[in-house]
Amino acid sequence: MATLDDIARSLGVSKSTVSKALSGAKDVSKAMRQAVLEKAVELGYSRGIRKSTAPRIAVFVINMEYQKPEDFGYDIITGFRKAAEPAGFQVEIIDLDWNMQENTRYDEYMVYNNYSGGLFLGLSLADPWIKDFETCRTPTVLYDNHVSGNPNVTDLGVDSVEAIKLAVGYLKSLGHSKIGYLSSALGAYVYLQRYQAFFRAMEACGLEAEPEIAGDSYHISACLATHLPRLLNKGCTAVICSHDILAHSLIIHCKDRGLRIPEDISILGFDDIPLCRYTTPPLTTIRQNRTDLGKSAFYAMSSQLNGVSLSSLMLHPELVQRSSCAAASTDPDRLSRFRP
Amino acid sequence: MATLDDIARSLGVSKSTVSKALSGAKDVSKAMRQAVLEKAVELGYSRGIRKSTAPRIAVFVINMEYQKPEDFGYDIITGFRKAAEPAGFQVEIIDLDWNMQENTRYDEYMVYNNYSGGLFLGLSLADPWIKDFETCRTPTVLYDNHVSGNPNVTDLGVDSVEAIKLAVGYLKSLGHSKIGYLSSALGAYVYLQRYQAFFRAMEACGLEAEPEIAGDSYHISACLATHLPRLLNKGCTAVICSHDILAHSLIIHCKDRGLRIPEDISILGFDDIPLCRYTTPPLTTIRQNRTDLGKSAFYAMSSQLNGVSLSSLMLHPELVQRSSCAAASTDPDRLSRFRP
Repeated sequence: MATLDDIARSLGVSKSTVSKALSGAKDVSKAMRQAVLEKAVELGYSRGIRKSTAPRIAVFVINMEYQKPEDFGYDIITGFRKAAEPAGFQVEIIDLDWNMQENTRYDEYMVYNNYSGGLFLGLSLADPWIKDFETCRTPTVLYDNHVSGNPNVTDLGVDSVEAIKLAVGYLKSLGHSKIGYLSSALGAYVYLQRYQAFFRAMEACGLEAEPEIAGDSYHISACLATHLPRLLNKGCTAVICSHDILAHSLIIHCKDRGLRIPEDISILGFDDIPLCRYTTPPLTTIRQNRTDLGKSAFYAMSSQLNGVSLSSLMLHPELVQRSSCAAASTDPDRLSRFRP
Repeated sequence: MATLDDIARSLGVSKSTVSKALSGAKDVSKAMRQAVLEKAVELGYSRGIRKSTAPRIAVFVINMEYQKPEDFGYDIITGFRKAAEPAGFQVEIIDLDWNMQENTRYDEYMVYNNYSGGLFLGLSLADPWIKDFETCRTPTVLYDNHVSGNPNVTDLGVDSVEAIKLAVGYLKSLGHSKIGYLSSALGAYVYLQRYQAFFRAMEACGLEAEPEIAGDSYHISACLATHLPRLLNKGCTAVICSHDILAHSLIIHCKDRGLRIPEDISILGFDDIPLCRYTTPPLTTIRQNRTDLGKSAFYAMSSQLNGVSLSSLMLHPELVQRSSCAAASTDPDRLSRFRP
């Protein structure tokens, strides 16, 4: 691992200039600081794990609520802290915005701010730093995202294939054979995974799934308006949704239009956000255990920091049965009650 | 978690009978012992983690050498021990045979022998206990195998898709566009994964891969005799093998028949077994870091024992460049030197 001396020698400057540049001292020019940072990243310099100080880990959050116990990110961060802090790590939460990503390269940001590793929650495939993850040298864990081939990056999530198979198998056991799938836009890595898993699960369960039995849209309202009438016409008695918010909207949308849940149509969500207990009827869904995701994120991180290079770490999903799914409707008139 | 009392009450016998049955005392009948074991498994009894004694972990080995440092299993087991023993676990190695699996159910074996968890190396999909893993209650880690949907089972391995992409990308960078793939029989989970990954990797690298450019056979000699002439006729200048032993045989087979490695044909293996350094030429291959696999197996195990239910844990592969791959041959006469 490179030292301050290596950087100084390589740039032909003094060690104290390098040290001052890395600590942001005012008497070092911006250009020199940038040169030092770039060289530090190039040489693989890290202020990472020193015995004298607690290693600092940055948890970057984007597009995800995490401040209150009912927010999706809250338990992930709590789980991460619970594992990391007793192990002597210092955890800092950073609201990541687009500008920050565009202004600084990821590795440079991490070296400059003295972070040993980064955990990312809520990143989309369009975020600028996604490109940096292909080659970054900082130990990095990505929740619900995928970067292939960089030994410093680990994917973390819940096994999508197993999850959707759990959902389809459960609905089949209730007598459903025509099962539809509604999804948020497939530009997000995890939604694409779940969408593809749906067709695999239907096949594995011996059920037919023509492409038209699934639909995806960026906006929830468009998703429901465009795809639901088609799914109903195809005879679907149950619909799996890519996430709970969509499932909740589907419940309201169906009830507004004369369909009873679960008598006329069964609805199954994904994530088990806290809201699921309070919908009417309460939502049957696939749980991602967020506390365990947080703990596992810390394992993935410390594994990287100890030189064991994990590619992915996936948790088992869990089916949470509430009241939005029931035996498949055999009422021939149910569709006549639907007012599109 | 069930106690001895629960088992005794449920069977209508005394607690001491249950205790004696579980410890294999001679004054308990075989039928009673079996009844106690079955009830213990049914109720989820585990002598697992007690503070007073070191939890015992069984490492089951089948179809895999592990006694000497040059054996494939040796470093995995060493890595596992290195992580498990300082954490207070007692590790026992068990040569698993077919009879043992057919005579006892897996969970019953584990309860009777007082093991808290099991790690399996070298199991095939045909092994009798594979069926038990779908529903077992014992925390279990399977190396290079896959069981879906049981929260108590974790798959462990190296990311096949990333590995084969690394191999194809490397050969492409050397100018190869016609790349063949030879495999052991696809009944083994991991060989099927790698085979499918080959076609995905070729597509991802923008290379054409008709089905005939790959071949699999149970026996190595049949694999070479049946598929190699076809691959050469298709114009392949490089061949990726599903494992190093096959790659080593391919090197010998090609040399015997007049082809030079790597001038006429590049050969790339998988696993990085110790032999790879001593083949002529030394074999370029994909490394599975066996020590890290062992350490990760322990993490997966302790994670299960602490109630964090991992579905899979995959390590990053690593390309090890030696001398069996070189720039794609452009010699039009090379095939005329091949004597099938």
